Amino acid sequence: MNNILESLEWRYASKRMNGEKVPAEKVNNILEAIRLAPSSMGLQPYTVLVIKDEELKKQIRPIAYNQPQIEESSHLLVFAAWDDITPAHIDEFISHTAAVRNMPEEALTDFKNTLLGIAEKNTKEENFVWAAKQAYIAFGTALVAAATEKVDATPMEGFDSAALDKLLNLEEKGLKSVTLLPLGYRDAENDWLAKLPKVRRQKEKLFILQ
Amino acid sequence: MNNILESLEWRYASKRMNGEKVPAEKVNNILEAIRLAPSSMGLQPYTVLVIKDEELKKQIRPIAYNQPQIEESSHLLVFAAWDDITPAHIDEFISHTAAVRNMPEEALTDFKNTLLGIAEKNTKEENFVWAAKQAYIAFGTALVAAATEKVDATPMEGFDSAALDKLLNLEEKGLKSVTLLPLGYRDAENDWLAKLPKVRRQKEKLFILQ
Repeated sequence: MNNILESLEWRYASKRMNGEKVPAEKVNNILEAIRLAPSSMGLQPYTVLVIKDEELKKQIRPIAYNQPQIEESSHLLVFAAWDDITPAHIDEFISHTAAVRNMPEEALTDFKNTLLGIAEKNTKEENFVWAAKQAYIAFGTALVAAATEKVDATPMEGFDSAALDKLLNLEEKGLKSVTLLPLGYRDAENDWLAKLPKVRRQKEKLFILQ
Repeated sequence: MNNILESLEWRYASKRMNGEKVPAEKVNNILEAIRLAPSSMGLQPYTVLVIKDEELKKQIRPIAYNQPQIEESSHLLVFAAWDDITPAHIDEFISHTAAVRNMPEEALTDFKNTLLGIAEKNTKEENFVWAAKQAYIAFGTALVAAATEKVDATPMEGFDSAALDKLLNLEEKGLKSVTLLPLGYRDAENDWLAKLPKVRRQKEKLFILQ
């Protein structure tokens, strides 16, 4: 079994964490994996908030149905997707691409127009849903990266996103929260889930070979 | 730099592949990573089609805007989400969980009712969108797993999902296609993208530290 499969076997959605801090180097590796995650067109239409502040985590806990890992985590990641895909987003992306690839922006005119066409064709809500899906790719990448660092990470969709957006002033940033990911270390003794075998669908049911 | 970051730096969305076959062991490792990927409630509300058949790939290519990697790949993965979350799905999941954890199904009654409540509260379309998001976590996991196996993988959303669903008879299986992932090996010489530096948003823009 190779390293990534071992890591995926090792990980689980910790229901209790022990408050121990994750070293900065490990957090940085997880964030770098998120940064390198692919997205449609390469747009990366999301922002990730990295929350260490204890007071803020305390305020978020009731918004996330009082799940204790919010406060027991070392760092709480909030994946927030763009609430729309705007011409300003696309301009910035095209400028950055031209700079990184050392080419004139004009060379990217067709690509830019494709992006603008897609964004304009869709409603704001459709653009947000699409952005959210891209965030889920980065979220999946973060889960694997945390596991390879032997850092526990609990994927969470169960929270009041409107309340969290308000607390974190996400609307004014053009963002809407989609998932949470507390990073920390499992409190195996007090976590009922730590002792149970992992449940996954059988190969024969999950895959169709053609 | 650790292994997963190196792998993520190495990978890119190959626009051309060379037709070389990926060894079964590597494919199996990638599928096992998909199988181990987490999902909300652990439901894994998706199926992944693993297509080796050359004739079928040929038929899919025009449905995917004629992207050559469809045919040039070794294996084409089709991620298809459940088109609804039904009581039958939940029954099967609960039975399987009870079997794996060696407990009576009755011990899972509360959990089952929670799942049934969520599925019934939502429309079929909302359930599908939620299932699709879970598929994106597995999709992200597959991308990382392929990269760690030094197998190229091109994430694709650009295809006519209704036409693909028809070709693959997905409707009768209660599935809708959401993403494609050709697996294979880059044809670096003929791929314009192989030579260009990777573009990713800057740390300072992608993350907000709090």
